[in-house]
Amino acid sequence: MKIPPVKGTRDFYPPEMAVRNRITDGWRQASLRSGFEEYDGPIFEHLQMYQIKSGDEIVEQLFSLQDRGGRDLAIRPEITPTLARMVNQRINTLARPIKWFSMPRLCRAERPQKGRLREFFQWNLDIIGEPSPLADAEVIFATVDYLRSVGLTANDVKVRLSSRRLLASVLGRIGIPPDQLQPLYALLDKKPKLPGEVFAEMLAQQVPDVGVARKINAFMDLREVGGIAALAGADAELEQAQAELAQVLGYLTTMGVAEFCLFDPGIVRGLAYYTGVVFEVHDAVGDLRAICGGGRYDNLLADFGGPQLTATGMGMGDCVLEILLREKGLFKDGQFGKALDYFVACVPRFATEAGRCPQEEAVRLTAEIRRHGLRAEFSYKAGGLGKKLKEAADSGAARCIIIGDELPTQQKLAVKDLATGQQELVDYEAFLAGISCKK
Amino acid sequence: MKIPPVKGTRDFYPPEMAVRNRITDGWRQASLRSGFEEYDGPIFEHLQMYQIKSGDEIVEQLFSLQDRGGRDLAIRPEITPTLARMVNQRINTLARPIKWFSMPRLCRAERPQKGRLREFFQWNLDIIGEPSPLADAEVIFATVDYLRSVGLTANDVKVRLSSRRLLASVLGRIGIPPDQLQPLYALLDKKPKLPGEVFAEMLAQQVPDVGVARKINAFMDLREVGGIAALAGADAELEQAQAELAQVLGYLTTMGVAEFCLFDPGIVRGLAYYTGVVFEVHDAVGDLRAICGGGRYDNLLADFGGPQLTATGMGMGDCVLEILLREKGLFKDGQFGKALDYFVACVPRFATEAGRCPQEEAVRLTAEIRRHGLRAEFSYKAGGLGKKLKEAADSGAARCIIIGDELPTQQKLAVKDLATGQQELVDYEAFLAGISCKK
Repeated sequence: MKIPPVKGTRDFYPPEMAVRNRITDGWRQASLRSGFEEYDGPIFEHLQMYQIKSGDEIVEQLFSLQDRGGRDLAIRPEITPTLARMVNQRINTLARPIKWFSMPRLCRAERPQKGRLREFFQWNLDIIGEPSPLADAEVIFATVDYLRSVGLTANDVKVRLSSRRLLASVLGRIGIPPDQLQPLYALLDKKPKLPGEVFAEMLAQQVPDVGVARKINAFMDLREVGGIAALAGADAELEQAQAELAQVLGYLTTMGVAEFCLFDPGIVRGLAYYTGVVFEVHDAVGDLRAICGGGRYDNLLADFGGPQLTATGMGMGDCVLEILLREKGLFKDGQFGKALDYFVACVPRFATEAGRCPQEEAVRLTAEIRRHGLRAEFSYKAGGLGKKLKEAADSGAARCIIIGDELPTQQKLAVKDLATGQQELVDYEAFLAGISCKK
Repeated sequence: MKIPPVKGTRDFYPPEMAVRNRITDGWRQASLRSGFEEYDGPIFEHLQMYQIKSGDEIVEQLFSLQDRGGRDLAIRPEITPTLARMVNQRINTLARPIKWFSMPRLCRAERPQKGRLREFFQWNLDIIGEPSPLADAEVIFATVDYLRSVGLTANDVKVRLSSRRLLASVLGRIGIPPDQLQPLYALLDKKPKLPGEVFAEMLAQQVPDVGVARKINAFMDLREVGGIAALAGADAELEQAQAELAQVLGYLTTMGVAEFCLFDPGIVRGLAYYTGVVFEVHDAVGDLRAICGGGRYDNLLADFGGPQLTATGMGMGDCVLEILLREKGLFKDGQFGKALDYFVACVPRFATEAGRCPQEEAVRLTAEIRRHGLRAEFSYKAGGLGKKLKEAADSGAARCIIIGDELPTQQKLAVKDLATGQQELVDYEAFLAGISCKK
């Protein structure tokens, strides 16, 4: 009976798995370089967990299920609620700032599209309990540090930063009442994806006053943090929000990644929970979805029954990232294939006079090499030396050991370097002693 | 609002995550040493997938859900059905033998017990398309190679081997009809967990003939493969099954792991799908559940709509393994803590005359060290050198760099080795050039 895989999921055959491992290894190394510690939670949580942060509309985007007691659960669509739950559970014993990362498998019951699947992996970085703009900068630095480590340059990707606090302050100054902010955020967040006239029309619906709408547009077009006061007039709140954002940009300069970063008031982030600096990373060409996004959020732990504790974080999915890395030629099919230190071949002309058959000698030596911590394989196939060398090359081995007549007669092995083709006869025991040292 | 985690799941705080990573890293390295390649599938499959191999009774042990189209899905309770599906999908292009491993997250809606949780990780090794007993031996070797690599010895764990084919043949020879084999397997599999008299009673129900029951008991007590023929009388099928098992044991001797392995006819494995050699690894004391189990299965690919292709494999969960490793003192709490190469401290007495504040210098240097591929952190806290050195020690750093007066006056840094306490003044640029080389 043939059953297909579930729509919107991926099968990771060894070549795809190698790419996935390459991505997650890079995420892990970048996180550890910046002093983040890894955590993880269960694949599912109580369904309510996701309603707290994202409201009831999230439910239809979840894969929900019930446990045996009939309780409603959902496969995690994001890990931030789990993070909030875990931190709240141990709030009194965890040293602050809490600097954690995770690379969870997540599922969303959305329509599959380019760069958006029903099942994906997401790198999450969070710093909890540290109000300094330095923490925002550190999250962004670690993000850039990863992107740079896989070969992306400031010509390929840009971190676009703004601030929710600044936006709220500017919109307040130019006359938008607080209760209209949330729908306006949602519209401004969509601006880059909408045709100009459609955005203008939708803005006119929400903001009928032409003068106010013009000021909003002027703000969205700003490229320098310094120009804000001239546009909206300054007050203490706006000045502080502006200073905070300038400080983050200043720290990013100190950290040597200024060329990746720019102020972009068009960055709003749809989610209600951001309260301060927000950012997204986009490819410079701008024809892909955001590679990642994040920002400061001050109320999440409290929403989950914990204390009011400020936090800042980032999430990067694997799908858009992989598309970009392939487009840039940084990941190629078959690039991360199988790799062995040794392929151990035996040739049939070597007779069994010594009391052991050649295959048995190959198995014995292979096991011995593995015991020394190196990667090795023997062949399951019969066949002459030509076939075995072909198999050795296909296995991704660096060297092929040929067990031939020299073993019973002289206790020697032929070791062939498969890159250079050079071959040398080595003493069996000396060979084993040599790989011992490499361990 | 405070919501608890789902019962039977685990939260992996950094210390627990470090243990989990240590386990999965070890699994991966042992797999790669033996030439297995990693694969993975989706977290869920169509529900039917699990009914094919395990029948309808599996359904109540599954976490089942529906996709938006109303199709029945289930979170994977094992990965073998996914493996069969994936191999069948590419059966014509995959080179054989297929030697794959995986370390999937799995979920079962069972009652949580010691060593048995609702969510766990399982190392899977499979060799598909190779009928030689050498393949069974290689799966067992890789399993032992892992256990040995984490410090377990032949005094701690034993691989107990038998053969389904041999058992079927013996039971047939002593008069059990083929249609009674499956329920008898299930009973024999439970023998070690049942009190003697309960087993005797249950056996008497299934096998009323006292002479036949006595022969079954005598077979179960055998410890040498050679004694079978004397007990059940030989025929070609029994001789072949016996030779196969002896060959596996012979290869394990060649591979140097004989001291870990023994014949145990009590190893049956409950699952219907095994057809040849079967094995389990137990702790020598025997008070834990099996650490892992596996064997040869010949019909699975065909059951999933593919060709008749022989296979042999192994599955090892993380829960029992971790209990054993902790009991043996091989894993200790806090053993795998955070580790940094450098903690960068600045002291407030260093004035800002040079135009830069000490904290900014610490941030700059930290970012520079990270860019060179090493792990580094600065402090978010104010405070004197004593506090900073304490923070450096708590961070798991190997060395602490102290930015003090020597930086503005001499362009020098103090580097303190936190293990030895030794401190030296080094030139800023020379330091950076030095860590460059280590990369």
